[in-house]
Amino acid sequence: MADEVKLFRTWSSPYGLRIVWALKLKGIEFKTIFEDLANKSPLLLQYNPVHKKIPVLVHNGKPVCESLVILEYIDETWNEAHLFLPKDPLGKAKTRFWAKFNDEKLLPSMRKASLGHGTEKEEARVLTTEYLKHVEQLLEGKKFFSGEKIGYLDLVFGWMAYLINVLEEVSGTPLINKEEYPLLSKWIEIFYEIPVFKESWPDRDKLITKFQNYV
Amino acid sequence: MADEVKLFRTWSSPYGLRIVWALKLKGIEFKTIFEDLANKSPLLLQYNPVHKKIPVLVHNGKPVCESLVILEYIDETWNEAHLFLPKDPLGKAKTRFWAKFNDEKLLPSMRKASLGHGTEKEEARVLTTEYLKHVEQLLEGKKFFSGEKIGYLDLVFGWMAYLINVLEEVSGTPLINKEEYPLLSKWIEIFYEIPVFKESWPDRDKLITKFQNYV
Repeated sequence: MADEVKLFRTWSSPYGLRIVWALKLKGIEFKTIFEDLANKSPLLLQYNPVHKKIPVLVHNGKPVCESLVILEYIDETWNEAHLFLPKDPLGKAKTRFWAKFNDEKLLPSMRKASLGHGTEKEEARVLTTEYLKHVEQLLEGKKFFSGEKIGYLDLVFGWMAYLINVLEEVSGTPLINKEEYPLLSKWIEIFYEIPVFKESWPDRDKLITKFQNYV
Repeated sequence: MADEVKLFRTWSSPYGLRIVWALKLKGIEFKTIFEDLANKSPLLLQYNPVHKKIPVLVHNGKPVCESLVILEYIDETWNEAHLFLPKDPLGKAKTRFWAKFNDEKLLPSMRKASLGHGTEKEEARVLTTEYLKHVEQLLEGKKFFSGEKIGYLDLVFGWMAYLINVLEEVSGTPLINKEEYPLLSKWIEIFYEIPVFKESWPDRDKLITKFQNYV
């Protein structure tokens, strides 16, 4: 029996997009179900009754939730080509550490730094600068976060390649520049143009309209 | 060369305790460094410059941070006896999902439900009830969260075995009862008495004094 793979996501969520990229890089055929978060489908609520959130991957009828968990599931299930995680325990631990850092610190902070207001925004800008310095360091001596080849951390940090520029336009203030973050800027340029990612970028104008409602 | 294993933790943190239990179950000798979070040691700041938090595991000079990441590191590094995680990708995914649920939802919510104030406390009580129902379901047909043997999820949920009772005493209101949560209550009874855990419980009176300062 061929694998049946379904992905529940929205058109714009970076958590959903990282799963799209992972499946494409592994060469797995899948069906996308686009969710409207204002009117969630009964299937989404059935598959993720705890958080009622996207993304959900459904593989041969079995749901897997939480995007970082899904990424590891994909890497462990289709493990014959293009492994995303390093094989050694220390490499895995570092990768998981930075993925958690992205989801819990960098991404929420950069959102607040551009879409937030008042003191919250100011504090988030300071934190974002601190976080970005760590990210810049991670790229020292490497083409991708995972080394010479796209890996787990590139998929996790991938949202930066299309979203920073949008957040900068909406908020009217720069978040990164080439002088301070030369390695990250270079990575964004390269990552943005790789076909498997480029063909999946959400519509820029639609994103700008969406975020303008928050500012 | 013998492994050199050091654990930076505090006397009371549930995130630190789960690492103590993991190391003991694996039979790994280690040295504990107790941190005072009001006056963090230069070594802690050096080993965890991003979050500046405990626990940190230092294995042959290499630091590993974030307690769930450390647990997987321990399981993958000392992988000959008593594996904590299931071997199949779906089992691993479910385990990681519930571990994240514990750290991001259940534990913070139960803290607020007992130590919080006003509306925040009331909302947390409602959420905690909802979360505990999921936890109760997880134990259906099983002795431990991981099945017949202590595993990753038992270590993650282990804080409940000593802390719920303390939080109930400090806040003066019950969090769980045997009628509504028979399986969880039974698990707490069994888990509490297992020597490897029992010998590591933080001093109850000291915990009560600590939490009374928050109420």
